[in-house]
Formats: sequence, structure tokens, C-alpha cells
Amino acid sequence: MNRVQLNPVGWMSQLSQLEVTRLEDTTNSELYNTFRICCLAVLNSGVDEDDCEILFAPYKDFDVRLIRRERGVKIELVNPPEVAFVDGKLVRGVHEHIFAVLRDMLYMGNKYAFLHQTAPLDGNGITDMVFDMLRHSQALEGNDELNTIVCWGGHSINLHEYKYTKEVGYQLGLREMNICTGCGPGAMKGPMKGAAIGHAKQRYTKGRYIGISEPSIIAAEPPNAIVNELIIMPDIEKRLEAFVRIAHGIVIFPGGVGTAEELLYLLGILMSERNSQQPFPVVLTGPKGSEAYFEAIDDFIGSTLGKEAQSKYQIIIDDPIDVARALSTGLGKVQKFRRAMGDAFSFNWSLKIKEAFQTPFIPTHESMAALPLHRNQNVADLAVALRQAFSGIVAGNVKAEGVRQIKQNGPFNLTGEVDLMQRIDALLESFVSQKRMKLPGSEYIPCYTISGER
Amino acid sequence: MNRVQLNPVGWMSQLSQLEVTRLEDTTNSELYNTFRICCLAVLNSGVDEDDCEILFAPYKDFDVRLIRRERGVKIELVNPPEVAFVDGKLVRGVHEHIFAVLRDMLYMGNKYAFLHQTAPLDGNGITDMVFDMLRHSQALEGNDELNTIVCWGGHSINLHEYKYTKEVGYQLGLREMNICTGCGPGAMKGPMKGAAIGHAKQRYTKGRYIGISEPSIIAAEPPNAIVNELIIMPDIEKRLEAFVRIAHGIVIFPGGVGTAEELLYLLGILMSERNSQQPFPVVLTGPKGSEAYFEAIDDFIGSTLGKEAQSKYQIIIDDPIDVARALSTGLGKVQKFRRAMGDAFSFNWSLKIKEAFQTPFIPTHESMAALPLHRNQNVADLAVALRQAFSGIVAGNVKAEGVRQIKQNGPFNLTGEVDLMQRIDALLESFVSQKRMKLPGSEYIPCYTISGER
Amino acid sequence: MNRVQLNPVGWMSQLSQLEVTRLEDTTNSELYNTFRICCLAVLNSGVDEDDCEILFAPYKDFDVRLIRRERGVKIELVNPPEVAFVDGKLVRGVHEHIFAVLRDMLYMGNKYAFLHQTAPLDGNGITDMVFDMLRHSQALEGNDELNTIVCWGGHSINLHEYKYTKEVGYQLGLREMNICTGCGPGAMKGPMKGAAIGHAKQRYTKGRYIGISEPSIIAAEPPNAIVNELIIMPDIEKRLEAFVRIAHGIVIFPGGVGTAEELLYLLGILMSERNSQQPFPVVLTGPKGSEAYFEAIDDFIGSTLGKEAQSKYQIIIDDPIDVARALSTGLGKVQKFRRAMGDAFSFNWSLKIKEAFQTPFIPTHESMAALPLHRNQNVADLAVALRQAFSGIVAGNVKAEGVRQIKQNGPFNLTGEVDLMQRIDALLESFVSQKRMKLPGSEYIPCYTISGER
Amino acid sequence: MNRVQLNPVGWMSQLSQLEVTRLEDTTNSELYNTFRICCLAVLNSGVDEDDCEILFAPYKDFDVRLIRRERGVKIELVNPPEVAFVDGKLVRGVHEHIFAVLRDMLYMGNKYAFLHQTAPLDGNGITDMVFDMLRHSQALEGNDELNTIVCWGGHSINLHEYKYTKEVGYQLGLREMNICTGCGPGAMKGPMKGAAIGHAKQRYTKGRYIGISEPSIIAAEPPNAIVNELIIMPDIEKRLEAFVRIAHGIVIFPGGVGTAEELLYLLGILMSERNSQQPFPVVLTGPKGSEAYFEAIDDFIGSTLGKEAQSKYQIIIDDPIDVARALSTGLGKVQKFRRAMGDAFSFNWSLKIKEAFQTPFIPTHESMAALPLHRNQNVADLAVALRQAFSGIVAGNVKAEGVRQIKQNGPFNLTGEVDLMQRIDALLESFVSQKRMKLPGSEYIPCYTISGER
Repeated sequence: MNRVQLNPVGWMSQLSQLEVTRLEDTTNSELYNTFRICCLAVLNSGVDEDDCEILFAPYKDFDVRLIRRERGVKIELVNPPEVAFVDGKLVRGVHEHIFAVLRDMLYMGNKYAFLHQTAPLDGNGITDMVFDMLRHSQALEGNDELNTIVCWGGHSINLHEYKYTKEVGYQLGLREMNICTGCGPGAMKGPMKGAAIGHAKQRYTKGRYIGISEPSIIAAEPPNAIVNELIIMPDIEKRLEAFVRIAHGIVIFPGGVGTAEELLYLLGILMSERNSQQPFPVVLTGPKGSEAYFEAIDDFIGSTLGKEAQSKYQIIIDDPIDVARALSTGLGKVQKFRRAMGDAFSFNWSLKIKEAFQTPFIPTHESMAALPLHRNQNVADLAVALRQAFSGIVAGNVKAEGVRQIKQNGPFNLTGEVDLMQRIDALLESFVSQKRMKLPGSEYIPCYTISGER
Repeated sequence: MNRVQLNPVGWMSQLSQLEVTRLEDTTNSELYNTFRICCLAVLNSGVDEDDCEILFAPYKDFDVRLIRRERGVKIELVNPPEVAFVDGKLVRGVHEHIFAVLRDMLYMGNKYAFLHQTAPLDGNGITDMVFDMLRHSQALEGNDELNTIVCWGGHSINLHEYKYTKEVGYQLGLREMNICTGCGPGAMKGPMKGAAIGHAKQRYTKGRYIGISEPSIIAAEPPNAIVNELIIMPDIEKRLEAFVRIAHGIVIFPGGVGTAEELLYLLGILMSERNSQQPFPVVLTGPKGSEAYFEAIDDFIGSTLGKEAQSKYQIIIDDPIDVARALSTGLGKVQKFRRAMGDAFSFNWSLKIKEAFQTPFIPTHESMAALPLHRNQNVADLAVALRQAFSGIVAGNVKAEGVRQIKQNGPFNLTGEVDLMQRIDALLESFVSQKRMKLPGSEYIPCYTISGER
Repeated sequence: MNRVQLNPVGWMSQLSQLEVTRLEDTTNSELYNTFRICCLAVLNSGVDEDDCEILFAPYKDFDVRLIRRERGVKIELVNPPEVAFVDGKLVRGVHEHIFAVLRDMLYMGNKYAFLHQTAPLDGNGITDMVFDMLRHSQALEGNDELNTIVCWGGHSINLHEYKYTKEVGYQLGLREMNICTGCGPGAMKGPMKGAAIGHAKQRYTKGRYIGISEPSIIAAEPPNAIVNELIIMPDIEKRLEAFVRIAHGIVIFPGGVGTAEELLYLLGILMSERNSQQPFPVVLTGPKGSEAYFEAIDDFIGSTLGKEAQSKYQIIIDDPIDVARALSTGLGKVQKFRRAMGDAFSFNWSLKIKEAFQTPFIPTHESMAALPLHRNQNVADLAVALRQAFSGIVAGNVKAEGVRQIKQNGPFNLTGEVDLMQRIDALLESFVSQKRMKLPGSEYIPCYTISGER
Repeated sequence: MNRVQLNPVGWMSQLSQLEVTRLEDTTNSELYNTFRICCLAVLNSGVDEDDCEILFAPYKDFDVRLIRRERGVKIELVNPPEVAFVDGKLVRGVHEHIFAVLRDMLYMGNKYAFLHQTAPLDGNGITDMVFDMLRHSQALEGNDELNTIVCWGGHSINLHEYKYTKEVGYQLGLREMNICTGCGPGAMKGPMKGAAIGHAKQRYTKGRYIGISEPSIIAAEPPNAIVNELIIMPDIEKRLEAFVRIAHGIVIFPGGVGTAEELLYLLGILMSERNSQQPFPVVLTGPKGSEAYFEAIDDFIGSTLGKEAQSKYQIIIDDPIDVARALSTGLGKVQKFRRAMGDAFSFNWSLKIKEAFQTPFIPTHESMAALPLHRNQNVADLAVALRQAFSGIVAGNVKAEGVRQIKQNGPFNLTGEVDLMQRIDALLESFVSQKRMKLPGSEYIPCYTISGER
């Protein structure tokens, strides 16, 4: 049996005896199993495979243990994947990521009782928790220069689009902007890779490549090789909140249903009257050949959330320099606004998020079937419902729990207003036909059915 | 009215809205008044005056306010002492100290409910709290090289002794050891000053001059100009625990009753069977001419705690190089022991401290009168009682609350076994005659009476 | 007319008045024209084109001027290529490169009278000059950890080979080795790119990507985007000496005639009796599919310089990890040897180089025709002659002066011993057929003829 | 015999073989003996003794050797003073100083042929050499923030004045100004010590304490413990030029004849028409009780160089804060001027210095007797002559060569215009009576006679 012991780094290197005891207490919990899986995902960083069953098959006998020492806690890896080691030594970046997983999942998980009823339930409490987690990960310290660009987009994009995301990242990097994405391959890796070259050419040594993930998806989208700060939020709602509060601007590349979920979440927030003064640069962009994608998205938004929602973003086709300049201009406005408001540069406190966007939505056949998918409500509520619908489909596609439910009970059924359902269907169809649902090589079998009128 | 607003630094620059709300809630508490006084003391850093009434007299209209901003909290000083400013700008070191006061007193005070019944009462809880406070002050991060020497000794020593403390500090600094003291003038400043020169000659740029104080004494002993890390523990017991857990070695210079308290606390711990394996270098030292002082102390220890207690320290007269070498040798043993135990370098978890040494002793006429001052008990318990007796006298001498009690009700009365009381009396007499009770210029009026047999 | 003024950086920011005067004096020299062309090449960094006529065609009105200020010298660019700018500001890395060109060509050129008869002519003088130039470029300061791997190979390699060079670079980077190459695309860029990723994963922040070029080739091979230290040696002989004295190990990828020149130079030196104790790890490597290339080279070496020469290198096919480990092992021996010799880690003083390898060889129709290409001499002399032959062909292929001569007077004629000439012809033929002579897109017209017996 | 070998640091750690050979060549020169003495002085740093015969008496068998290694040069100390070592290891600051001595005396001495006829003789050449020496010592790199204050004043001042120089240094340090002095005790140490405290309070970590000395005086005034950059200029004229070109402002404390020399040098330059636009803050300051000193100086200047000379400085008595503010204001003007002139911040190129101030004056009985001490010439020439007179007296007081001459041939004789001679006599008398000529403990025997009319 191959065993490797790791000394703690970062915040985890200074724990009180009480905290160590509490960590030890978690080792019998359900959370601990999730922790084990996340560690395995991190150790497989850089391997391109989004089916976690296939990914984990060779590591049935992998385990991770907490070892108590007078001075604190060590991690012992049992039979870890060789790919994470160089001449018998764990790659330093992976070492750091392993302790980021411990920090976010067990240490903070303990503090906030993840997966338990006692996690904060009201909006302010959730925002404070998101803040506290980002603070412990030291993500806020370097975030006070208004240069963090969150990039969203599919993990499964074609080579042409991938190269474009690198080009955009390169132009952002040349302008000394940092990149924050969801951690995996595709549009989550390209901008980081491009920015790294741009940073190098500008001799910018503080380059940040932040990956924000969540336990249920990290196995399908492990941190790519460039990520130098890994943060794991407990669920998709807190992850999305972390994205929008840490971001100074957002770029959206072509993607699938996850990207649509992210855009709907963002627009639902920005359309709130209380955020109407808030400048927030959002650019949708792709290379020549991806126009159709953005037309479909833009049409869908226009016909569901309306013109005002469309005014919240800018679409730029095949022009990385223009994208970078649009963000530069936008950041100038963000600076003015934050100064005027007395708001922090590192965390967007003044952005108001409705509790409906913060409350965890747990996709089940019941909850998916019950979604109010009709336009007979105000657009903010519709945005909430649509986001939840797409969130459920992401779960059914790649999250372990979702995949299990689909296997057991068949596809989720979405029903609602006929016209709206047709639009949803059309959008999803386009994702399928453009092969944006899964990494290439596997055929996509929809995890949903759509029907009008119930 | 002169107002100055200060931006937060360090940990205080990243607070959640909830934490800010809680800070605001403290502004009406009794704690807040203490906070105000500590701020004033810090702003008077470098002024030599241990009578806080005289010190604070010119600043009747001084105030400090917390100002809430979207991004966190600012501090507003109203009519602050000019001495802390350079051309209208607060000296950066003082600025940092002000926020250290805020951090330790209000932020941590809130977390642990200082001054309230809900502060941790059991030993492990207290140790965890001490650790947590040191961690938040970032004192542990740089403490992993086994080079922190805690120096104890009087704030009121003569010039000859003061120069000697500088000489010792210089030799420690040349050997790249850092200094931690109780913050004020005299033996708490000299070693820092000497070490700073030693560090400079060795081009050692990580020099640490840590001052650990407590709210009730900081006014009498504000941080000297060299202190670059200020920590304020809630009471003397936690302050003493912080000293011994952060220390890798201890030097004791001539001092008064406070120094005696510290030595008794240390010996009481080191004599515990459970610490018998623990190497802990302790050196008592002073210049030629101070021999009498150490003979008195050594006699007192010998006749009260016995030979074993005497074996825990080494007395070196007038030889700074020898002091430094004795510590070097001792640190080697500490390193071996910590490695063997798997204990942290930055915090001495494995040192066992009896709860009797951790529980706050609040000196009043009753509690002082009730102290079991006789040798008809084991030496560890006697050490506890003796420490408490001396602690009470320190309070009566310079702590505001103690001074108030003495003014109102006359001196504390200590009674007990005749021979022991005579020894105590003799020791205290020697402190008085050597003018170690108060800064020169004022005459000392004893805050205690001593009588045998009750 | 578009003008941009640049403030000096690095060594160039501190010049005496005398030095500035001397720089000004160069502006009318022939050297200055070469300087202008090098600046233009640096400004075109990242553009893939090795025909400098095509590259420079759009910039007929480009110019560069020295502007004297009381404080020193500024550079003014007139009509520079836009590609080097971001929103009107020169990319910082390019800015640094421009002043590296000024430093190496005009400032050092002045000191050593490049292009003039007064440059040092004896071997020790040349070595001192090479040292002095590396020292002024600050390349030696960071070179004391025995981790600089010089990578040689073609600028025109296929995508499969290019990816392999990245893989090797990645494995070197994971082991915290730095990369030094000849500056251009292909095998000179791939290892740097791979190493940058490896460094990032190991959180290695001192990554060095050193490009060593020479004025006559920089236009054809401008520094790629990763190069963060640019050094321009006056001629190919000093450039080669800089490579072997700064290197702690060498990797040779597939390449053309330039790579062959480098290998012959290296073997010629290592075969010297006086270097027989010197450990010097040399690995020839390429991906599956490139075996034929290394067989051809190895055969050629075997049949010309003999078995001993072959023993100086190791051939590894398609195994980047093995390459990295072979170097690791070799570096261990280098360390032992340098320690034993008391030699510097940053500069290999103890390597003996015969003057014949140091003396500039200027290829002309006469000098090329006069090369003693026969085996009727000792192998070291044969190595000298072969290197010069290949050096001349590189010049005829891509160096401006060589290309001009060929245009005017037809191909160089190489003659010599029949069997040897056939082997040379076969090797060159294989380079042509493998398209290693020029960047793809252009057809290769040989700049030489080969005939036996004269 | 006690031998210690030192590895080279700084510039000396990267020497070419040629440079090492040249260094070796110096070991038989007269210069080498001076080098040996300077090393001994540096090893005695911190010892207060200005009579070098007494200082060096215990070290008759001290020697220093250059040891050639393949990689460069090491220094071997034979029987060095113990005071420079800590537990057998040379203090790092002293180690650096030793190599500064090697760099400035032998390496640069070689380059410029110190002590030989071939040193630069024309003004521009001398300025370039001064620049080159400061550049090699890396003194210019950190000198671009307009905060270097040169402090002049006596090495033998009373405690009251010494404390005042610390106070002034403290106020300068609080304003983040750096200190440059002549290296020894007294007014050359106090401002550094004070500034170090001020820097610490402001958390200013780039504090520079530059000592500029010369071989003939370093034995009498070895670098004090605070000096962290040591530079040794070949003679007093180049040392003075280094002071005024590196300074952004100058403070003059009470001192003796050396201080008078410095002031005359400075005024002679500032009075030149070509420097009339140049803002140059100069403050003469001392504590209450030193007024008489400044009156004497001011009178002397007024009656010799006139009102215009008096307008070049400001006298401030007993007000350190006012001194610091006057400099702050002055630095603002310096910044404006340098920007307007395009002059460097790190080196005052635009200050014009007449060759008469640059040419070495070698005091002998002849040259001293020949000085044109009368007012029948323009004031600039008179300033030159007066400076030389005082320079000669300094030599006669403390420089080895001067002391030797006096011992052999009796005092220097100064003659000239009656009234002028009386004024000189009066000034010198006041220095003697104020005990500013030598360190306390020794009685001063004048090394000069003064007579009117010749």
C-alpha cells in the first residue's frame, strides 16, 4: 500500500486542538466521503474526463486520512494517482489544492454545518458565510485592484472556440487583469492559459487564476493546471454568489446549459431595481462561427426576460481586443461607483441578491416537475425558475447525485406554458446538436423531457 | 474639534457585515470604555509616565468612534494626542497598534465575550482561546524558527541595568533571536532596542519586537517605540499563558513585584510532573551590582518552592554573551524535544498548565485576604497563591481598578504563616528600597500590609 | 509620424555622461544600423516569419533614435510595429528587450569594439568578454542553482515534434529547471512554454526563460513571447560559448543545420583531453517518429568524430520523464565536480575551449571553399572544420549577410575527401527532405554545392 | 594562527579571471597596505577610538590575503579582531563591509589607478569616476526617491549634542528620509540611530544608512554599527563630490575643522553662477547651548565669503521638527527642478563643480604654506583655498600620513592676510576650546601655526 503524508499549508497549518478535534469528528460523516472524492478529483487535475465513474474506476482503493499531531493535522493519502507526483513528491500546486479542499469542506463545513439543517438560511447570513469562506481562502487579499474577470463558458467547446478563449485571456492578461473560472477544462482553462502568457509578457508577477468549484461538480471538472487558487463553495448557489461578489467584470463564452444557468442567475440579479445603479461589465463573446450560439441565447433572453435584460450585456463577435477594451472601460465605471458607495474593491457588498437566488435548489423529480415555468409572473421570479430548471439539468448531466436519480427514475420532466417550453426545448436542442452537453467522445442522452401545459 | 479617520489594516480590513454589526453593538458596553483608554495609551506610546491619571489628564475630550462603511469599519479619533502624528498623519506603527487594539479587544472580545461570564472557563478552552488570539494577530506565522526570547523585568530599572538589558538584547539580536516583552519601558524596551542593532548588523530583516499587554496595564505601560507587533490579551492569566506558549526561551532581568509574579507563574508550571521532560531555557541575569537582587529572589524561591524550583533556572551575572550562548544551547534542546513530540514550533501545545494558573484571579480586599499563604500544602499550590498575592500588589500599584480600590478602602491585607510572611515582606521591602515599584520621580506608598498568623 | 519615447531600464538606466557620449557616437556607425534592425526584430516578437525581407517590408519608415537627457539616455521609436503595443503602451517585456539590445549591442559593443579589429582576439580575452556580457545582463545572478538547461533544436519543426518539446519542457519545469534557448520559434519556444506550466504547478516563481541570440540571426528568430531574459552576443562563436558556459545540462531536439553546428561545437569541446573529467549531461531526444533523425546524426558523428564523441551524449526517444531524470542525475555529478574544483555554479570557468572554436569564422565563398574537410587530421580539428561548414550554411540560409552573398555569387562550394563529402551531403539532404531548413510555406533552395576531391 | 576565509558578496562575487588576476597583481602594491589597514578598521567597527596607532596596536600580526579560486576570489583574514565575530562567525554586516573595501579600493582602484598618475585628471572624468564608483556600490539604485539627507558634523561632540543629532535623525526617519554620513561616531552616528527608530515606527523597511569614507580616515572613523552601505572614495575631494551629488538635502551639525571644510566646499559650489538656479536645502542645526558655535561659523562665512554665501543655508536652533520640515519643503523644490531639467533623481549631474574643487590637494608643509589666504581674489577661489587649509588641518589631526608629517617636521604653517588669519585663528581656537578636535580623553595639540602677512 502506497502512503504519502502531507504537511498542512496555508490556514490549515495553524489549527487549535479544538479545531483538530472537530475535524476528526467529521471523518465518520457523509461529508467526509465527499471530501475523499474531491481529493481524488484534485489529484487527477489535468486529466480530461468528465465522467467521474470512469475517472475514479482505477482508484477503488484510494483513501485519505487525517492524522492528528500535537501541532495540528496532517493528511495521509493512501494509493493516490501517480499523475500528481514528480519523482515521488506531490506537485506543490496539488498539495495546496488538497489543503484548500480540507479547509473549505471540512474546516469551514464544520463551522457552517454544510449538508445540515443548521447552515445559514437567511440572505444576509448566506452572504456573510460566502464572504467568510473567501476570506479564509485569502482570495480577498489580492482582490483590491479591480481586475478580476470571471469567465464562464462550456467545459466542452471545440478547438476553434478554445483558441478564442485563449486569445481573449491573452488580451486580458496584457491589461493585467486576473481570471476566475469554474475550474475545469475548455472555456474554464483557455482564458487562464492565455492570461498567463499575457502576464508573462507584461512581467506581471501577481497573476491570479482562481478556480471556484463545488463538491458535486469538482469530480467532473477538476482544477486545470493553471489554477493557483482553489476555492470550493458548498453548493451551486453559494458558488454563483461567490462569482458575482468577487468579480469586477464577467465574460461569457459559448457553453451549454451550465453557462445558461449562470447567465440567468446574473441577469436575474442585475435586473433588480435595487441594483439598477450598479455598473457591472458583462460581455458575451465567441469567435467567428459562433454567432448562431449567441443569437439563440439572446433571442431566448429577449423573449423570456425582455429587452431590459438584454441591455445588461454586450455581445462582441471575434474581437478579443475589443472585449478587453470593453471591460477596461467598464472597470473604470465600477471604480467610480465603489468609491462613491464606500464599498470594498475586494467584495461587492452593495450588490443585492434576492433570497430566492441564494436558497439552495435541490433538483429531484418532484422539485423539477413543480417549477413554475410560465410568463404569468414578474421577470425576476421567472429568472429564478429558469435558472433552477437549467441547474437541475446540469445535475442530471454530470453531478453524481443527479446522475444517480436519472439512472433510477428516468429523465426529469419539465412542464409549463407551451410557448415558453418550446423556447426552452429549442435552446437545449441547440446545445445538444452543438455537442455542448458532454466532453466529446461520449454521446449525449438527455436527462429531461419537456412538455407544455400541465 | 480635531477628527482623524483611519482606514482599517490587517485582519480588521476584512470584516463581514455581521462582524461590523457586532462591533457596533459593543460601543455602548463597558468594554468600549476600556477600549477607548487603550487607544489613548497606544497614542501616547513612547511617553514615559506610569501614572495613567497624569498621563490622561490632558485628554479629557479624547474620543474614539467606529464608523460603519459598506466595506467595513473605520476608526475616527477625536482630539487625539499630537505626539502620535507626523505632519498631520498618524505614524504607521501607531496606526497598526490602534487596529490591534480593536482586533484584540472588541473583535476577539466579542467572540469570546471578555468581561462576561461566557468566556471559556475550562483549561483547554482557555488554551484554545489564547491560541486563537495569537493566530489572529499573525504572531504565530513568523514564530516557527525557535528564536523567540521572552524578556521579563521591571519597567522601572536604573540606567545601569537598562544599558545591560540593551547589551543582552544586542547579543540576542546578533544571534538572530527575536524579542517578546510586556510592552512598556525599562527592561521591556532595552532588549528590543539592543536586538534591533544586532539584527541590523546581521542584516536580519525579519526582526520581531512583540509586545503582549493587557487592557488593565497598557495605560501604565504603553508599547514602546520598537514594538512592531502588539497583542492585547484580556487578562494577566491569559497574557502569561501567551508568553510561555509563544516563548522558546525566557530571560528575566531585575524587576519588581510584577517580575516576581511572572517568575512564580513560570516555576509553578515547570515544576509540574507532566512538564518534567520539557526543556525550557530560563536565564536570570543582571549587571554587576545587581547580584543582591538575584540572591534575594533565589533565596525566596529556595525557601518557598525548594531546590527543584531553583534547578529550573540559571543565574548569570554581568555576561551578555554567556546569556546568549546559554539560550542558544537551550534552543537546541527545545528543537529536539519539539521534533520528538511532533509539537509545533510556533506554539508550545505540549506544555501543561494547571487550571489554577489559568483561572482569572480578581484582586479585592476579600480575595487578597483569603489567599492560603502557608507551606502546609504542595509547592505547586503555594506557587499559585504566591503568584496571586504578587498579582494583586501589581494591581494595587498601577492598574486603574486596583488603584481605585486601594484609594477607597486602604491597603490590601495579606496574612499567613509567620515565617513565610516575613520572607514575603523582606522581598517586597527590597523592591521598595531598590525603587522598583514605580517609575522614578514619585514616592512609593505600599498598597499592602503583611501580617503573620491569622 | 508616430513616435514613442522609452525610459531606460536595467543597467541602461544608470549611465555616466561619458558612456552616453560614447553611445551617441555610435549612431553614425554601421553597428547602429544593425542595432536598428535588431530593435525592429524585437518589436516583431511573436510574429512567425523567418524571411527578414518579408518581415521588415512593412516598416521601411521605422527608425530608432537615442535621446540624450541630463540623466542618461532614452530611446525613441519612430513608426514602430503596432503589434508590440497594448492600448498605446509598449508591452513591458518588449520594453526590456529593447534595452537589452541597446545594452548588448551599443554599450557592450562600444566597450569591446564589436565589428572592429580591436575586439579581444585571444581565447582568455574572449572568455572574459563572454563572462562580462553575461554579467551585465544579470544572467549570472540567478544562475547559481545548477538548474539551467540549454535546449537546442530547429526553429522549423513539425507540430508533433513541437508538442514533444513542450512535454519535455513541462517535465523539466516540474523539476524546477530553467530553460535557455536561441530565442526563436519551434524547439526554441516549446520547452519554455512547457516549463512555464511546470513552474506554475510547482509554484516556482523564479522561472527563467533565457534567450541568447546574435545580431545576424535575431531578425530571422526574434525572441518568442516567453523569453524573459534576452542576451545578444556579437557573433555565433561567442553565442555558443555563452550557451556552454551558462549551461548545467543540454537537451538537443531535432533541428537542421544550425542544430548540427551546435552539436559539433559541443562535442569538439567535450572531446578535448582537458575536459575529460568534466561531467556534462547531454541528451538528444525527440518523439516517436523522429528516430530516423537521430540515427542519421548519430551515424554521422560516429563515422566522422568516432565512438568517443558518441559517448558524450545519450539518445532518448519519446520519453520526456526519462529525459528529465537523466538530466537530474547528471546535475548531481555537475554539482560534485564544481564543488571539488572550486568552480562557480553560475559560469563554467573550468571548461577549456580551444581558440579555434572561439575565433570568429566569417563565411565567404573563399573561406567556405578553403575548409579542410578530410579525416586526415585529428578529430578535434575536424570538428572545428565541420562546425564552420555548417555555420556557413546557416548564414547562407537565413543570415542577411550570407543571403546577400549567395544572391550575388551563387551557392557556397564545399569540397573535400570523397567519403566525408558524401556523408555531409546525405545529412544535409535529410534536413532538406524533412523540411528543417526553413519555416514551412517556402521552398528550400540549397545555398551550397558539395563535391569530393579537390 | 587564526584564519578565517570569506566568500565574496555583492559585485565581488562575480569577477572574471582577468579581474582576479589584476586583483592579485595589487597585493604587492602600496595600495594593498592601505587596503589591509582599512580592513582592520572595518573589523574594529563600533570601537570608539580615533587614534589609529592605539587602535591597531593589538593587531600587529593581523593580515588579509586574496585567495584565487576557479570561481573568483576569496578573502582570508589572519588573526582578525574578535570583536567582529559572533560565536566564530563574522557578523554579516562586517562581512559586507570587507568586500565593499575590496571593491572600492582594489577593484575600482585598479580600474582607475588610484594613487597613480593615471587617475582621471579633468573634471568630467572625475565626475564620471565618482558616478561609476557609486553605481558599482549599488548606492544609486535605491536613491531615486529624493529622500537622501547627508549629515555632516563632528565625530567628537558632547552627549547633549549627540542626543540632539539622534532627535533630528528621528524626525527625518519619521518622514521616511534616509541618512548618509561620513561613517564614524558622533554626528555621523546619531542621525542614523535616530532615523532607524523613526523608520521602524513608520514600518519603513527600506532604511538606508550610507557611510562614505576614504582610506586615509577610515581608521580614525570606522563605520558605526548602523551603516548598512559602505563606500570608500579614493580621496577627500571625490568623497565630497560623492556627498553632494548623492544628496537631496544636507544637515550640518556642530563639528570641528572637518565640518568647516565640508561647509566651505559646499558653499564654494553653490555660489557658482552656474548653480544659481539649483535648489539645494542646507540646514545648520544644533541644540540649545550650541548657538555660539553657529554664530562663530556664520560670522566667519559672512566675513570671508559674504552675504550671498550666508543665503545658501538656514540656521535652526533646537527644533528637530522644524529641521525636518525645512528639508521636506526643500525636497519639493528639488523634485520640481530635477523634473524640469530632466536630471536623474539618484545623482545630481546638473550641479557644476569647478575643477579646483575636484583636484586632489595633498597637504604638505610646502603646499600648506603656499595657500593663497587673502581676500584679494574672487570668493570662489577663496573658498577653494580655505577648504584646502582646513583639509590640511584634518590631515594633521587624524590622517596617518598627515600625523606622520607633523611628527617629523612640526606643525603646518599657515600665513596670509592679517585680518583673515585672525578670523581663521579665532575659529580654530573655538573648536579647540569646545573640544571638537579629538575624541575626549586626549588633549589636543595643534598641528598648525597661524601668522599674518608673509
